[in-house]
Amino acid sequence: MATIKDVAKRAGVSPSTASRAMHDSPLISEETKDKVRQAMRELDYSPNFAAQNLANQTSNTIGVILPAREEAVGDNPFFIQIIQGLASICNAHDQLVSVASGQTTEELIKNIETMIKRGNITRFVFVYSQANDPVLECIKQHSKIHYVVIGSPYTDKETTCYVDNDNFKAGYDATKFLLDKGIAQVVYAHTNLAEKVQNARYKGYLAALAEVGLAESPLCLSTVPAAEMQNAQAFSKIMAKSSGKVGVVACDDILALEIQHLCDICEVERSELALLGFNNSLLAKTARPALTSVEIFPRFLGSEAAALAISTKENDNLKLETDHVVVPHKIVERASTKI
Amino acid sequence: MATIKDVAKRAGVSPSTASRAMHDSPLISEETKDKVRQAMRELDYSPNFAAQNLANQTSNTIGVILPAREEAVGDNPFFIQIIQGLASICNAHDQLVSVASGQTTEELIKNIETMIKRGNITRFVFVYSQANDPVLECIKQHSKIHYVVIGSPYTDKETTCYVDNDNFKAGYDATKFLLDKGIAQVVYAHTNLAEKVQNARYKGYLAALAEVGLAESPLCLSTVPAAEMQNAQAFSKIMAKSSGKVGVVACDDILALEIQHLCDICEVERSELALLGFNNSLLAKTARPALTSVEIFPRFLGSEAAALAISTKENDNLKLETDHVVVPHKIVERASTKI
Repeated sequence: MATIKDVAKRAGVSPSTASRAMHDSPLISEETKDKVRQAMRELDYSPNFAAQNLANQTSNTIGVILPAREEAVGDNPFFIQIIQGLASICNAHDQLVSVASGQTTEELIKNIETMIKRGNITRFVFVYSQANDPVLECIKQHSKIHYVVIGSPYTDKETTCYVDNDNFKAGYDATKFLLDKGIAQVVYAHTNLAEKVQNARYKGYLAALAEVGLAESPLCLSTVPAAEMQNAQAFSKIMAKSSGKVGVVACDDILALEIQHLCDICEVERSELALLGFNNSLLAKTARPALTSVEIFPRFLGSEAAALAISTKENDNLKLETDHVVVPHKIVERASTKI
Repeated sequence: MATIKDVAKRAGVSPSTASRAMHDSPLISEETKDKVRQAMRELDYSPNFAAQNLANQTSNTIGVILPAREEAVGDNPFFIQIIQGLASICNAHDQLVSVASGQTTEELIKNIETMIKRGNITRFVFVYSQANDPVLECIKQHSKIHYVVIGSPYTDKETTCYVDNDNFKAGYDATKFLLDKGIAQVVYAHTNLAEKVQNARYKGYLAALAEVGLAESPLCLSTVPAAEMQNAQAFSKIMAKSSGKVGVVACDDILALEIQHLCDICEVERSELALLGFNNSLLAKTARPALTSVEIFPRFLGSEAAALAISTKENDNLKLETDHVVVPHKIVERASTKI
């Protein structure tokens, strides 16, 4: 019986490309998809291959690890879309998706250990990436466990499988989007530049400004409610120096909403800004003016991570290829940047 | 080896109460918890009982069914909290949580069938309840499959296991909360009274008004973007008839935000309203004025559903007790109702 590796070889592509082509990923060209489909027909390949492994030692289950802190999850509505993307691909390949959760790091680690010992689960997807993560350290200590990270890994990036957006490019595109409207001052609003996502978008912002010889104008805000007056002062200072329409790239939709509130507090018309956020969440749609936001396609982050975890299942030594996948982004324009 | 049924019998409670007591549910009194703990000690009961079943025909996995329509999931940030609650209890009982998802109803049903056939999964939790659901019909056709619904079942309510908030009481409490502030006109904003949740909250609203002899003032809105002017007309009409502060019970936070926007369109000061939503989502926290909202504890909806699905596992005939659990709600007051 043909495996996905056989199909990949005949089509002249990598196993992960073959898998992506099979589930119609937007990352794969139609030409490549045709090649893979033809190889599938020639080899009489059935995508239900994974069912073959049911009797094996290795379980046909992918473990999905949610971050331990409850707030971290509640504040990120796109986790559920990531899980949907994961489940969709896994279900289609007869793989189960099993969720590991915990209210504390200790509880989460204990639950993962149970999944490994009792469930024989050997493949995991982290739906988050954070610095100094004890959960990741625990997984790394298991020699036969393989994992895929959604987001940019903080350590061992070269040897880790991960799926991410190109946040540098996203920051660059967002800034250029505002500059192309003739805006002469663009602010970058953030809370913590030590966070990889915020930092990469910031670097992209700087690159876009450098191209047109404009100076940077970073605005560091706090999301602690008590910091509102301090935020307002920092915002006022920037607005006082500016003339004409000010562009603001906010590192996420939550922060973009905070900027709208700062406008009200500082008696700046919301329409004086050209404001843009990231994540294209429900917050962006319900804001007034509705918020232009960068869609990061969480569903595809999930499905690509699943494909990466599944596609090399047949490798004899069960090692995943060291690989990473970049999921595209897209600016969704709404009223907040209409000039 | 003692089972949870033995513990329950000795403590003089039902198996589901025993299970809830074990995982420290807020629904169980301290007195009952003490009784259960003592019975556990006397019988040397280990909560890892489920591991005993690993070798059995029945898998130690609970299937979690997400609604098929992607938008339905994306718009409900509390699904992830439900899953966390489910996973937390299941993990603690050595049960895996496996997610079923699909972009279409057909895909979802196919995936569930695979989980049943290949994964031997016999217990499912629906994280939603909707009228005429073909997925539920499919599950019902399997005689050995048992399921728990989160929400109020549209059919066979008497014989279905479900976990829900008391939405009548929640609507009543929300309305009374506004009336107790001396507000003489309270509006109920909704989109569709055929939906059980919206309807139950509406009935509670009517009951609270009836107690003080006030007339109802329902406001039917559409969430279709094109309906904004129509919404504004309906809202203006209600505001024109009113004098003094108007209370608004909006059937969820999204609709409460829509009311805030209608204020801006109709040139009504947002502070003229005492506005309240449901779900206590991120939208409530980021609104201005920040929105008073009824917390429905999605995490507990998940953990209670898991407890219900697990607790009767040892029943010989694998039938779940017909049971339902009511998760409490709580009004979280913010600026939108401060007078």
